[in-house]
Amino acid sequence: MKDLDFMARAIELAKKGQLKVQPNPMVGCVIVKNNKIIGEGWHKEYGKDHAEVNAIKNCKKKFGAKKAIKLIAGSSVYVNLEPCSIEKNTPPCSNTLIEHQIKKLFCGTLDPNPKINGRGIKLLKKAGIETNVGLLRDKCKELNRVFFTNQSKSRPYIILKSAQSLDGKIALKSGESNWITNSESRKNSHYIRSRVKGILVGRNTAEQDNPSLTVRLTRDELGLGKNAVIEQPAKIVLGNLKKSKKVSKIFSGNSKIFIGSRQLAKKSKNVEYLQYKKKNFLEEFLKDLLDRNISSILVEGGQKTLNTFIVNNLFDELVLYTAPIFLGKGSKDALNLNSPAAIKTAMRLKMIKLERFKDDTKTTYYNNNL
Amino acid sequence: MKDLDFMARAIELAKKGQLKVQPNPMVGCVIVKNNKIIGEGWHKEYGKDHAEVNAIKNCKKKFGAKKAIKLIAGSSVYVNLEPCSIEKNTPPCSNTLIEHQIKKLFCGTLDPNPKINGRGIKLLKKAGIETNVGLLRDKCKELNRVFFTNQSKSRPYIILKSAQSLDGKIALKSGESNWITNSESRKNSHYIRSRVKGILVGRNTAEQDNPSLTVRLTRDELGLGKNAVIEQPAKIVLGNLKKSKKVSKIFSGNSKIFIGSRQLAKKSKNVEYLQYKKKNFLEEFLKDLLDRNISSILVEGGQKTLNTFIVNNLFDELVLYTAPIFLGKGSKDALNLNSPAAIKTAMRLKMIKLERFKDDTKTTYYNNNL
Repeated sequence: MKDLDFMARAIELAKKGQLKVQPNPMVGCVIVKNNKIIGEGWHKEYGKDHAEVNAIKNCKKKFGAKKAIKLIAGSSVYVNLEPCSIEKNTPPCSNTLIEHQIKKLFCGTLDPNPKINGRGIKLLKKAGIETNVGLLRDKCKELNRVFFTNQSKSRPYIILKSAQSLDGKIALKSGESNWITNSESRKNSHYIRSRVKGILVGRNTAEQDNPSLTVRLTRDELGLGKNAVIEQPAKIVLGNLKKSKKVSKIFSGNSKIFIGSRQLAKKSKNVEYLQYKKKNFLEEFLKDLLDRNISSILVEGGQKTLNTFIVNNLFDELVLYTAPIFLGKGSKDALNLNSPAAIKTAMRLKMIKLERFKDDTKTTYYNNNL
Repeated sequence: MKDLDFMARAIELAKKGQLKVQPNPMVGCVIVKNNKIIGEGWHKEYGKDHAEVNAIKNCKKKFGAKKAIKLIAGSSVYVNLEPCSIEKNTPPCSNTLIEHQIKKLFCGTLDPNPKINGRGIKLLKKAGIETNVGLLRDKCKELNRVFFTNQSKSRPYIILKSAQSLDGKIALKSGESNWITNSESRKNSHYIRSRVKGILVGRNTAEQDNPSLTVRLTRDELGLGKNAVIEQPAKIVLGNLKKSKKVSKIFSGNSKIFIGSRQLAKKSKNVEYLQYKKKNFLEEFLKDLLDRNISSILVEGGQKTLNTFIVNNLFDELVLYTAPIFLGKGSKDALNLNSPAAIKTAMRLKMIKLERFKDDTKTTYYNNNL
């Protein structure tokens, strides 16, 4: 096996922590001696041991503590993200690796967290450990796309979603929008909901559609074990939404609810009202959401809300479900953006996935214009 | 091998005549004796021998005329389309099969041509030949989708094409539309041009864009041999287009040109003006095009022309290229259709193909609402 293979294995391990480690990054770690893996581990859950510590534990379990310590000394360690250098819930991993006298560290990327960025590597180097940064860098970055965005932008990772007709409409003039896309597409959109920490809609959409904003899939459909708890994302509303019969569904259930607006309202049970002075408070609101561990959000509309996110270039991903129907003029446009001065200057997105649900398409784009 | 396999082989053979046999259907034929193929053939070119005759010739070439005649007597024949019963350019195939004393005939579908429809089978039955209609019927119909449409609708097979932004726009307010989609998509659209007998645009588009309406791909790109001639589709304009400097490109070259309008104009060189009395002359125009061997057309726009075809439900296929950009409000919509009364009543298309050209998508739909 080659260095690349060991790093690929670390990435594979890291993925096992998906969703459970947020707002932490997913990290996997492989310890290698004489070209053989002697220990591996991953960060399993927020607040619990980091990948490096779990890999050492795994090695000790395999070989017994005494032999493991001998083996780890002089070994090479592969980890997708720079080992941490600060103590938070757990002791810093860099120190642990130094104590175990490893010989060489391969890490895919530096930690984007400005409190760490490079400091873990510095510590290791100072202790005489060889370091190599950048192995499978792109894959390591992609793996923790949400975390990197959180760190570099100080906001949640933002996915915009629209379900529209071939002519770009999301509802008839009457407001009717059930259902443009087919049941398979709608099911898939619930799967996306299950992958984020919060679902955001604008106040108008909340009042008009009275949406539940919940994941309505079974454990089986979500690929979860029998006893797993389905974690519902937080419900987030942009604009001054008040409790009423009209919006009964949002306020039912136990999900955490965040409402951001310029109006004051007192906190109640699971609802947190966030008040802002500025008219254009979206960025501030997003930062506050991240501070509340909402590391990723799915923005589901309506038109005005999606527009606001696009106009402010506040999105990382766009998911578009397209149904093979025409809703015609007079129907509501998915978006109402201003026109670019020239086609050349229009923002171009990068397609990363193309899927099909019966006669609907799903296209997923990254916004590379950030 | 089973009956299904022999019919599948007949379909495979038939495809070799693609584009060369129009306005005839593609037909392949397999002759089987004692579960072995003893002869096979296909209709190679319009006006030349039919598949059945070529299969008999192939058998004679393989075994010598004398032995072949003995072998064919008592054989089973597989053909995707009903053998013809009328003499046109070649003698009727039903008679040929009867003369050769075959035992059993399998055909995928009856000939939709009302002059034949069932009469070929009748002739064979009358001569004591067992007949079986319907083997791989759907595949046989799909193979000759153009021909079936020509016969049942008395018009060319119609493909609508649009190249649009994510918000369903085809040009900026200024009229700028070069280029919304990327070079790979545009290349692919030339490939579609090469598969039809005519390209149609509205008069406004002709005047505004001065398009060439030609296939601009090399022999290699079209998968043609070194000495093959690239056949250019006819250029068709809906509306009273007059020769002028503004539309120089349409009138250059040697392609046949058809212009349908309510105005009279005299025929000139390669241009045929078709005049109609009725305001709504599209169906008549289409019938006249089919009478001139234009068995398939690609409608490339603009908005008004595409609308007209959709509103009149005059299309069999829709090809949509979608580029990952937003052109915003004020930009020109691909379509300007009336809204359906309810989403349930909106016309739904059937997706038959989903492709990707870098960051563009291409979706191909069938209109099953005919």
